[in-house]
Amino acid sequence: MVAPNATLAVSTVIFALRPTDDPGAESRARSLWIPLVRRLRNPFDNFWALPGGPLPAELDLRDAAAKTVEAVLGFAPRYLEQLYAFGDVDRSGTSGERVVSIVYWALVGDAEARRARLGQNVRWLRADRLPTLAFDHNAIVDYALWRLRNKVEYAPLAQAFIDEPFTITQLRKVHEAVLGRRLDPANFRRQLAAAGGLVDTGEHLAGTPHRPPRLYRFDPAAHRIDQGPLAGPGRSPS
Amino acid sequence: MVAPNATLAVSTVIFALRPTDDPGAESRARSLWIPLVRRLRNPFDNFWALPGGPLPAELDLRDAAAKTVEAVLGFAPRYLEQLYAFGDVDRSGTSGERVVSIVYWALVGDAEARRARLGQNVRWLRADRLPTLAFDHNAIVDYALWRLRNKVEYAPLAQAFIDEPFTITQLRKVHEAVLGRRLDPANFRRQLAAAGGLVDTGEHLAGTPHRPPRLYRFDPAAHRIDQGPLAGPGRSPS
Repeated sequence: MVAPNATLAVSTVIFALRPTDDPGAESRARSLWIPLVRRLRNPFDNFWALPGGPLPAELDLRDAAAKTVEAVLGFAPRYLEQLYAFGDVDRSGTSGERVVSIVYWALVGDAEARRARLGQNVRWLRADRLPTLAFDHNAIVDYALWRLRNKVEYAPLAQAFIDEPFTITQLRKVHEAVLGRRLDPANFRRQLAAAGGLVDTGEHLAGTPHRPPRLYRFDPAAHRIDQGPLAGPGRSPS
Repeated sequence: MVAPNATLAVSTVIFALRPTDDPGAESRARSLWIPLVRRLRNPFDNFWALPGGPLPAELDLRDAAAKTVEAVLGFAPRYLEQLYAFGDVDRSGTSGERVVSIVYWALVGDAEARRARLGQNVRWLRADRLPTLAFDHNAIVDYALWRLRNKVEYAPLAQAFIDEPFTITQLRKVHEAVLGRRLDPANFRRQLAAAGGLVDTGEHLAGTPHRPPRLYRFDPAAHRIDQGPLAGPGRSPS
């Protein structure tokens, strides 16, 4: 009835924790990285851009985002949520063509991030230290990063970045890597206790002779990882 | 470079507080209502639907949503935020045409809601008691309602529904109308005090001889009303 009026693209900001390149950091310290794709055509020839592309006719929005992650990394993300639709009239940088991008953000687990083999024109870049990207992609990444850092304070997003069981210290390191700052250990422990959602496994970390730290799991009943409204089978709002 | 691959629509869920039609309610009790538009063609001929339409070529997404509110009610909303993009392959109900809808939600003040003169095929319906709507619009309204009720617990959304100065009781009535349930007055007062963000005007409600209640304003420094990421001039994330 109405003619198509824009090109609809789906792009994805894919966060992974990988070894930091901060000078002087602890040997096992990590930072947030995202894979970006080098553009090989104008506009923004040779600039880095978010992975994604035009919405395939046969795919729902979320499936298109998941497919992008699989194309870039070779596996499905642990967490995938719609972030925002970006559609300013002049954002595409090409005269005559209007592109509206529906952006998802994804979290990728440690083991998966290590396994990923990026293609020739794809590279991991530090999420909080990016060069000038194509289009409005710096603003998009900044917003995704803000959303991740905000949500990790109240939702069990760290589940995506950590393997169970884990110690409180290991969990704190994940939060520190996501937030990009140190957290006070005693405060962190207190806030975790207040929030609930962890199960004491009754076991302790092996190989630590004196007062070995306890190992925990996430409580599935308290803390189902929440991927936003209408996210799929669960379809519970975020 | 890439052909348009979908029709992009922008629709808006417009919430207003209007006198309730609950049987036996207090005379000044209110409920949440939204204006809906009766469809005059297939698919879903004669069903109620959210106001909106195809994205105009010259408008940013947010401006398209604001324009819809003005077209339906005759004025701009006090609050406007992007809700979600709905784009399942089969949601449009018409063979061959794919429609992706970017949905905004809006809040309308009391005085404005009273002033609104709806067009012939537009009607206020109770947001929490809707008939079967066109397309997937029931799911969209349900999600918008969930988002409003969730956000009113931590953000000063009530600003959109109340004129300053106000009493704590008046503010509680707004929250009750939004949430659709009674709140304990002492608890409500305690939570407000803990959250901060109100300024005591030093004045009292006129016309109340004994212990006249205090009048408050929102503290603009503590509580700028927040309309989501990239929302316009302020552009602070929600």
